[in-house]
Amino acid sequence: MKILVANPNTSTGVTDRLVTAGKLVASPGTELLPMTAPRGVPYIATRAEAAIGSAMMLEMLAERRGTFDAAIVAAFGDPGLGGARELFDFPVVGMAEAAMLVACTLGRKFAIVSFAKALEPWFAEIVDWHGMSGRCAAIRTPDEGFRSIDDVQHEKEQVLIDIALGTVKNDGADVVILAGAPLAGLANTIRDRVPVPLVDGIQAAVTMAEGLVRLNPRKATQGTYRRPAAKDSKGLAGPLADIIGHRES
Amino acid sequence: MKILVANPNTSTGVTDRLVTAGKLVASPGTELLPMTAPRGVPYIATRAEAAIGSAMMLEMLAERRGTFDAAIVAAFGDPGLGGARELFDFPVVGMAEAAMLVACTLGRKFAIVSFAKALEPWFAEIVDWHGMSGRCAAIRTPDEGFRSIDDVQHEKEQVLIDIALGTVKNDGADVVILAGAPLAGLANTIRDRVPVPLVDGIQAAVTMAEGLVRLNPRKATQGTYRRPAAKDSKGLAGPLADIIGHRES
Amino acid sequence: MKILVANPNTSTGVTDRLVTAGKLVASPGTELLPMTAPRGVPYIATRAEAAIGSAMMLEMLAERRGTFDAAIVAAFGDPGLGGARELFDFPVVGMAEAAMLVACTLGRKFAIVSFAKALEPWFAEIVDWHGMSGRCAAIRTPDEGFRSIDDVQHEKEQVLIDIALGTVKNDGADVVILAGAPLAGLANTIRDRVPVPLVDGIQAAVTMAEGLVRLNPRKATQGTYRRPAAKDSKGLAGPLADIIGHRES
Amino acid sequence: MKILVANPNTSTGVTDRLVTAGKLVASPGTELLPMTAPRGVPYIATRAEAAIGSAMMLEMLAERRGTFDAAIVAAFGDPGLGGARELFDFPVVGMAEAAMLVACTLGRKFAIVSFAKALEPWFAEIVDWHGMSGRCAAIRTPDEGFRSIDDVQHEKEQVLIDIALGTVKNDGADVVILAGAPLAGLANTIRDRVPVPLVDGIQAAVTMAEGLVRLNPRKATQGTYRRPAAKDSKGLAGPLADIIGHRES
Amino acid sequence: MKILVANPNTSTGVTDRLVTAGKLVASPGTELLPMTAPRGVPYIATRAEAAIGSAMMLEMLAERRGTFDAAIVAAFGDPGLGGARELFDFPVVGMAEAAMLVACTLGRKFAIVSFAKALEPWFAEIVDWHGMSGRCAAIRTPDEGFRSIDDVQHEKEQVLIDIALGTVKNDGADVVILAGAPLAGLANTIRDRVPVPLVDGIQAAVTMAEGLVRLNPRKATQGTYRRPAAKDSKGLAGPLADIIGHRES
Amino acid sequence: MKILVANPNTSTGVTDRLVTAGKLVASPGTELLPMTAPRGVPYIATRAEAAIGSAMMLEMLAERRGTFDAAIVAAFGDPGLGGARELFDFPVVGMAEAAMLVACTLGRKFAIVSFAKALEPWFAEIVDWHGMSGRCAAIRTPDEGFRSIDDVQHEKEQVLIDIALGTVKNDGADVVILAGAPLAGLANTIRDRVPVPLVDGIQAAVTMAEGLVRLNPRKATQGTYRRPAAKDSKGLAGPLADIIGHRES
Repeated sequence: MKILVANPNTSTGVTDRLVTAGKLVASPGTELLPMTAPRGVPYIATRAEAAIGSAMMLEMLAERRGTFDAAIVAAFGDPGLGGARELFDFPVVGMAEAAMLVACTLGRKFAIVSFAKALEPWFAEIVDWHGMSGRCAAIRTPDEGFRSIDDVQHEKEQVLIDIALGTVKNDGADVVILAGAPLAGLANTIRDRVPVPLVDGIQAAVTMAEGLVRLNPRKATQGTYRRPAAKDSKGLAGPLADIIGHRES
Repeated sequence: MKILVANPNTSTGVTDRLVTAGKLVASPGTELLPMTAPRGVPYIATRAEAAIGSAMMLEMLAERRGTFDAAIVAAFGDPGLGGARELFDFPVVGMAEAAMLVACTLGRKFAIVSFAKALEPWFAEIVDWHGMSGRCAAIRTPDEGFRSIDDVQHEKEQVLIDIALGTVKNDGADVVILAGAPLAGLANTIRDRVPVPLVDGIQAAVTMAEGLVRLNPRKATQGTYRRPAAKDSKGLAGPLADIIGHRES
Repeated sequence: MKILVANPNTSTGVTDRLVTAGKLVASPGTELLPMTAPRGVPYIATRAEAAIGSAMMLEMLAERRGTFDAAIVAAFGDPGLGGARELFDFPVVGMAEAAMLVACTLGRKFAIVSFAKALEPWFAEIVDWHGMSGRCAAIRTPDEGFRSIDDVQHEKEQVLIDIALGTVKNDGADVVILAGAPLAGLANTIRDRVPVPLVDGIQAAVTMAEGLVRLNPRKATQGTYRRPAAKDSKGLAGPLADIIGHRES
Repeated sequence: MKILVANPNTSTGVTDRLVTAGKLVASPGTELLPMTAPRGVPYIATRAEAAIGSAMMLEMLAERRGTFDAAIVAAFGDPGLGGARELFDFPVVGMAEAAMLVACTLGRKFAIVSFAKALEPWFAEIVDWHGMSGRCAAIRTPDEGFRSIDDVQHEKEQVLIDIALGTVKNDGADVVILAGAPLAGLANTIRDRVPVPLVDGIQAAVTMAEGLVRLNPRKATQGTYRRPAAKDSKGLAGPLADIIGHRES
Repeated sequence: MKILVANPNTSTGVTDRLVTAGKLVASPGTELLPMTAPRGVPYIATRAEAAIGSAMMLEMLAERRGTFDAAIVAAFGDPGLGGARELFDFPVVGMAEAAMLVACTLGRKFAIVSFAKALEPWFAEIVDWHGMSGRCAAIRTPDEGFRSIDDVQHEKEQVLIDIALGTVKNDGADVVILAGAPLAGLANTIRDRVPVPLVDGIQAAVTMAEGLVRLNPRKATQGTYRRPAAKDSKGLAGPLADIIGHRES
Repeated sequence: MKILVANPNTSTGVTDRLVTAGKLVASPGTELLPMTAPRGVPYIATRAEAAIGSAMMLEMLAERRGTFDAAIVAAFGDPGLGGARELFDFPVVGMAEAAMLVACTLGRKFAIVSFAKALEPWFAEIVDWHGMSGRCAAIRTPDEGFRSIDDVQHEKEQVLIDIALGTVKNDGADVVILAGAPLAGLANTIRDRVPVPLVDGIQAAVTMAEGLVRLNPRKATQGTYRRPAAKDSKGLAGPLADIIGHRES
């Protein structure tokens, strides 16, 4: 099966890292298709940037639709996930979502550990949106900034381990999610240095997406993710406007 | 003082209606500045459309910044509100937010009544986002569709009254919010036909925005709405890219 | 318009302070009418004292009714607010309520900072009563007592700033409410020394009360704040007994 | 042991009924001491009346203190309970509280059935105050009024049974609380006509009060119910002013 | 009346301690009947052990039914409580449940203090199961292990006092529950060294059980604790199989 | 990989049905190993039966450990799941858990539809235990009983469809879980007759278990599912006693 890894950030280095980490857990026969946002910011970290990335995600999925079996919203805050589920009939999984759902099978409380302070408010909102606040022990990030988004997981490796250990000791975390596309693959590296299970967002998302393709659920025609009625629009990217207007071929 | 009424929908008729209704409660000396989205859909009704409208809202506020004292996100689901509070230093109020906050002073539980079934999932999410689910008795809309967004409040007047009465009788609503920009002003018309207070979103927002201008709170430099650090971007509208990059004049 | 500032404490010094602080944000044309409780304690700090103050608040509002457009329950725990909304047809706003509602527009989480340890349990209950616990980061007060209620805001100025800074750093507060009538006006003084917005209860209440007068909501005849049926009573203050007995002129 | 049954309503007929019902479950050697409010309303039904009754309850307990081992706040909404626990060192139990705590041992969800529509908002608040909303299936009362408070349990007997049956069938109630002092004793009468356990407020309160006397917990000197520091007051009833001022003999 | 103290642990020393502590608060005329689990572990501390103990509890109650008026599930996590309420028609009370319900009358928030770190996850789940998480300030235990289950309350006396003091100071506990059968009776010993009320599980359970016997509620034939229909089983202990199969004499 | 399908019910017909349904979605190379409880009831429906089944589940997993890569607790209420995660180092997934987690990716609210009224209280508790109550729209079952557990999915097919349609229309369900081992495979049959996605518990569990094996999380040595210290026991099945005593070979 083919799974689109739709990265709403503009950094192709991050996309590469996501695909590399995802392949480590993908089933034989699963192909991960990379896609990087043509507009936006190098890495989404705030609600403002997520708003921009959410609109971009819908454009990206509309543009490539028909070429894959399932899509992953490949930024931890799941920008555009709800809208994507309304518009499209293929399965869509968010990285934050998949990480939290998998974490629920590994502990009672998970911590989310990431690389930049600026991410905390946005991540807190996505935890809430998924109804997972009751199972979230803490969201923690380093106090100091980092040098390069492409290398942040190496630069901050020990700091992130220390933060993870702190969530286990002080916040009651039973499992730690390493959050944010730039940390993809880190869980494999540091697995033996944290005494609880680690969850990698892209890896969790790949297994959830594969599972959904196998389960093959029908598209809802009632309820929250039924497709909206056709609507005119003005000035939107062509493929997205076609989807909104029910003019897809 | 000057308050920007930023309508993320593309229909200028709705913008006119918002300003007209808002003026009925504005203080002497308050000027309401209308602004209509240049791109998007005629009226936002879904999460997908709200994602597009959220990005547009940030563009709109960036474009006009410096010409007003406070801004109203003039669509009921408050698209872009969180991001706007991060990026800008003027007060921003959402119509859903203002309506719910005012409703809290008029009853223990409010109902949200609007004109289209498609709005319900989006509205449910914005109620949650504001942490107001515990005070929301119900979100109710007509079963049947409507003919024209510009005239929906007259076409559906009796239906909306009946729904409002139902929320009082069956859902325990103590106050009813008439939600959605196309219903602006309706509360004044039907006030005597519903036995509980009615709240009009734009009118609530105008009073809250005026209050915030008078209270003159400082811009946070810590906490959830501190301004994000400067960041490069690619392909965004100029004024918004300038704000994100800390290049505003 | 005329707004009654009904202080259920017996200290007129506090009433003066409230009116002075309120005037700083009142609209041109708004008059603040001071009223001080004739019986009770100098400042309400506990549930027992609030019970006494709640009954007194109803007496006070009954006595002055007809001479103002809206009333403010001018003690932070909003004693008597629910009962007042049942009995009377003018808008009534609580200081705790108004402060929290305004704070919701300035951050995701607010802290409540006040001057006496004894206030904490009562304040915690009023936060709950308003359904705002999900947005309250912390309630914090100084460990040591104070010398004089009339001067506590000067005596404790630096201590209160330090506590406010602590709620931002340790509790995740995005906005700080300076709570309690004796702290009225302090927000203006220390505004630049705390990195998040400050909310002053009386000032928030004045803007909310003005807004409600402009919005002019109808009195409910259904729902939680409908007026109770006429009832006999024994031994109550005359004007309050008249209101309860539906004998008002 | 001696248990004060402090009825904050002014109707002695209701007090008699409470004592009669309570005696049916009291242990040998337990004496129930009746006390009726000298001022107030015949039966408290609203938040306004509860505010008045709360202050009265504190007066009543202060006046009789020293003559009993534990006290029951003998109105279903527990007026003055929190304040009483601050001021006094004897155990105090509320009728609503005791009924809900006992109901928790008999089912997962309880319904509260009472005799007057006006009681619902007040009862809803006391359920919340006790943190019991998660276990409350419904609060239900008759649509029509009643003739006499002294006889309401006979007049409405069949109506109350029908409402109780409805809460079991439609609301998922596993146990039904018959709420309100005027319904004291009704549970014994109709026990076989409802298929789930019934809880009588005064009877639950008597068993809880007896248990507390036997457990003999110490008075807190820390935490929410520690005694407030001595404070001056103005115009309060003598015994209550003495307690507040730490001048009790 | 006769109350069965059913200890699902295999240690008779703990059973003796429970009965001794319970007698201190039992009414004249109440007899406590001891029973110790014939199979299982010396003291239940984890979910796995509680699963084993839950099944055992049902066997124990089935075996002795008919010889007592009420039963106490005499381990703090209440193993088997829900199932027991389904199967049997006598009142059953859990030690955790009774302790928490009594604690609700003594403070707004209780802490649970126990003797072994391993107990925390299980206790957290039982607090949730009872819907009491909103009133639980903290669950705290010593970091270090203990020597003997029979003597742990003496060995750890000072440590437990220090933990209790910490919950009052740091977690906002208003009342402290000393949890776990091996701590039975400790509350009486250390009562004056903790500034808030202490609750002993077995003592709370004895008073609640006595109260339920006096209240004499009917067995539900509807709702969550109605008796399940007769069912065949394979390989279960005889008396329990008889109860499940409706073959009891 | 090998996945144990551990059915805590004694009916082998149900085990067969589970394996057949699971194979429809298993990856190539995945083998499902059936196991049926040697003692207990034909199908677990109540808390009492779940208590028995929980202890049995631990015995079953202990007996077969070492012969599979992951285990599925193959009864919808997940009996023994928490304890299994403590004791063992292989991944364990519950059918209720897996169904709910998958449902979260397909809608905002799921309904649980099953075949017997008696299941409702138990299912409600497992939803709570997983922290999923906020996403559960309703739990619904037929009013009438059924003839045979092996054939109930055919006998009740239309009734179950009607109930599912009702949850979409009346309860706001966006996705429907067909719950209970005896309904395994039904989702495939009726998929086109319900307008929202259906989730089959065993199929969801198979995909989740496969994903966990691929993700290969480490066993926790800290947190809620760390392995308990070795402990003696009395009278337990040998393999389980060995695991509890840390005597496994």
